Amino acid sequence: MRISELSERTGVPVPTIKYYLREGLLPEGDKRTPRLTEYDDRHVRRLGLLRVLRDVGDVPVEGLKRLVAAAETRGTVHDLFAVAADALAPTPPAPGPGRAETRAMADAIIAHAGWDRVREDSVDRDNLAATLEMVGSFDTHPRDPAEIAPYVAMADRLARHEIANLDDHKDRVGLLEEMIVGQVVFASVLTTLRRLAEEHHSHERFAEDQRD
Amino acid sequence: MRISELSERTGVPVPTIKYYLREGLLPEGDKRTPRLTEYDDRHVRRLGLLRVLRDVGDVPVEGLKRLVAAAETRGTVHDLFAVAADALAPTPPAPGPGRAETRAMADAIIAHAGWDRVREDSVDRDNLAATLEMVGSFDTHPRDPAEIAPYVAMADRLARHEIANLDDHKDRVGLLEEMIVGQVVFASVLTTLRRLAEEHHSHERFAEDQRD
Repeated sequence: MRISELSERTGVPVPTIKYYLREGLLPEGDKRTPRLTEYDDRHVRRLGLLRVLRDVGDVPVEGLKRLVAAAETRGTVHDLFAVAADALAPTPPAPGPGRAETRAMADAIIAHAGWDRVREDSVDRDNLAATLEMVGSFDTHPRDPAEIAPYVAMADRLARHEIANLDDHKDRVGLLEEMIVGQVVFASVLTTLRRLAEEHHSHERFAEDQRD
Repeated sequence: MRISELSERTGVPVPTIKYYLREGLLPEGDKRTPRLTEYDDRHVRRLGLLRVLRDVGDVPVEGLKRLVAAAETRGTVHDLFAVAADALAPTPPAPGPGRAETRAMADAIIAHAGWDRVREDSVDRDNLAATLEMVGSFDTHPRDPAEIAPYVAMADRLARHEIANLDDHKDRVGLLEEMIVGQVVFASVLTTLRRLAEEHHSHERFAEDQRD
């Protein structure tokens, strides 16, 4: 198909497709004549993934590049997922004075959860440490880092469910896509549902409460 | 205290404090002389909240304004939380052709969850509908909207836990701050923990798997 049809089928505008081609995020099409380049289902599929990552996951271009590179290298599916985890993770905020201590706490939380397959240099170890640092630094509304415990159990349940539900008939790129889409989409679903549930449950406790 | 001390105590730069004052996000200080304005603990506290909302919650200035306005109006704490839910919710993406149907699905999910205190015009009803529309529109990696069910149960448990744990000694603004900080911080905690847990659990299934 031509680039115009590719755009129509995927809903991605032609200028965006050209940008992805320039950035190497989309493989070149098959150049039949100087004025006709053919695109195929691989392009449709890749654009579907890029659309979700940009629209829902808010993944920056650098992250997209790392994900595409990982999808194209060899290694186990587990290795591929580890690269994806780092690509999807935000850049950890610069460490404050308490970071060494909270990094040790983060490592202890991960060890205590039994997540011993998480790489020592996983970006999310630092993200967890940064959050713990922030949680402890609130002067006006301090939070106890121990509050994190119930979320660990919940994350474990979620992850088991999601890994177990991946479709075994897919190839490695298909599994990557499914994992990412699931992670990104259902993170947004869960955040929305949780706000809805809090609106409901706040009624039970605060329906009549007009405190100063 | 002077503005310079306010900046030191909160870690918020002076130009940002001046910006918040201009935007009405921070109440005016007490003008003692033309060159000396006094700030107090209310300012420290408000800046703490604004810092978290901007740094962690990524709440745009318009959302900050609605939150501050809600904190200053009368009404029950439940009403206040409803305004906060809308301020924290992203703007729903423009509806596609399937939106009427997915909005009905979203309403059914909320009703089935028993969340009958959620306002009819809650922004998150449309966010849920938009997500369902997107989930159903994936050509290359379709997801069944029924996959949302386990997340509903999880969101319900999370919300009960968080509402029940709010400190009853706080005033209305204190409760609002605590609820928002909890929601924003622990949404980010949960997303990080879930990526860590997926890295671990993917090892069980895919450690040796080098599929094409």
